[in-house]
Amino acid sequence: MSKRKIAVVESTPPAERPLERPADRSGERDGRPPVEAIRAAAFQQFAERGYPVVTVRDIMKACGLTQGALYNHFKSKDELLHDIIASTQAELERVTQQAVAGAGSDPRAKLAAFVRAYVVRHCRLRVEALVANREISWLDADRIGDIRRSRRAIREIVVGILNEGLEKGVFDPPQVDGKRDLKALAMALLDQWTHVSMWYGPGGRLSEEQMARLYVEMALRAVGSKA
Amino acid sequence: MSKRKIAVVESTPPAERPLERPADRSGERDGRPPVEAIRAAAFQQFAERGYPVVTVRDIMKACGLTQGALYNHFKSKDELLHDIIASTQAELERVTQQAVAGAGSDPRAKLAAFVRAYVVRHCRLRVEALVANREISWLDADRIGDIRRSRRAIREIVVGILNEGLEKGVFDPPQVDGKRDLKALAMALLDQWTHVSMWYGPGGRLSEEQMARLYVEMALRAVGSKA
Repeated sequence: MSKRKIAVVESTPPAERPLERPADRSGERDGRPPVEAIRAAAFQQFAERGYPVVTVRDIMKACGLTQGALYNHFKSKDELLHDIIASTQAELERVTQQAVAGAGSDPRAKLAAFVRAYVVRHCRLRVEALVANREISWLDADRIGDIRRSRRAIREIVVGILNEGLEKGVFDPPQVDGKRDLKALAMALLDQWTHVSMWYGPGGRLSEEQMARLYVEMALRAVGSKA
Repeated sequence: MSKRKIAVVESTPPAERPLERPADRSGERDGRPPVEAIRAAAFQQFAERGYPVVTVRDIMKACGLTQGALYNHFKSKDELLHDIIASTQAELERVTQQAVAGAGSDPRAKLAAFVRAYVVRHCRLRVEALVANREISWLDADRIGDIRRSRRAIREIVVGILNEGLEKGVFDPPQVDGKRDLKALAMALLDQWTHVSMWYGPGGRLSEEQMARLYVEMALRAVGSKA
């Protein structure tokens, strides 16, 4: 059976993990509750090898737990895939909302805060982003709805900021044949911010913080932000 | 076995196909040579269902040929996947090179020509782009080299245009801490131009031509193009 040969397989960096706990806490591995160990192993396995070829046994072996432990938390591999994508998606929605809410009333500051939060997260959580974007198509149709809803909600945050900046006269978004399509503009920007997760490496020339600033600058230029 | 439930499964539009030929030409289906029918069916099947779950039998059934006909052209499913990704990748490299070569000497015109060719192709050949970008990770490592080389060559065309525009003083690319990273800028722009293939639909508000103009305008703004 084919095995994916991809480079993007680094685990969640320590800063994103819950604090270490004493090793003797019952039912925990690596200081994490079993459900967290299962989620981390599932992200890693799906990213490295692809959802269809990874078995429940592979995941449990990778995190050192029994198959029974998985079925205590998830009814199926499909439910596990949904859980990990939905949870990282919900967290993305939460952190971007929070960033915008804390940015004050200027649409330029809101956009910058959104881009910073989104890009730093996608530079850092590359395995999670890879699974959420590439493996989502394996989900059963009835499980995909809430993830689509969250994606639309995130897009609507961006469209809302663009609209507000246009109304307040601080943004001058591109026009095509005299029309502005803020939804297409938001989609184009989100594509740019999302896919940095596919090639960014911590050993590159720019730090996460510098990447965030580069992307903020590109975004402000693209929307025609006025000084 | 899971079946992918994705929306992006339209076939290559008629304009991209060879002209229809008489139905009685031996060894041809739908006016195409068998090898073209196999390639088209493989793109469609891999896009709809994902490489690992599609069998050679599925592909041959989809194009109405025998398994023997496939093995006349391709030694394996892996070789077929490589062939279709490598051929669409080579064509992308060719059309973007050609667009730039025909754009004159102004880096602004070169960038605009590149973006137009790239974005129109990605609006139109969405199935091909989906397979080339999502399924490439299933390729054996020794087959992936020439595709990576072509991707780098395309990126270098963009970096070259950015460099030239900077030297001629017509571009003012973003700086971070006093440094310009034209490679990161090119990657960020290419992500935007590539992933339009994942959401653009011909029924949307903007035509392919209008999308191309929107993306050209965003690119010129991002690189700080001077009027």
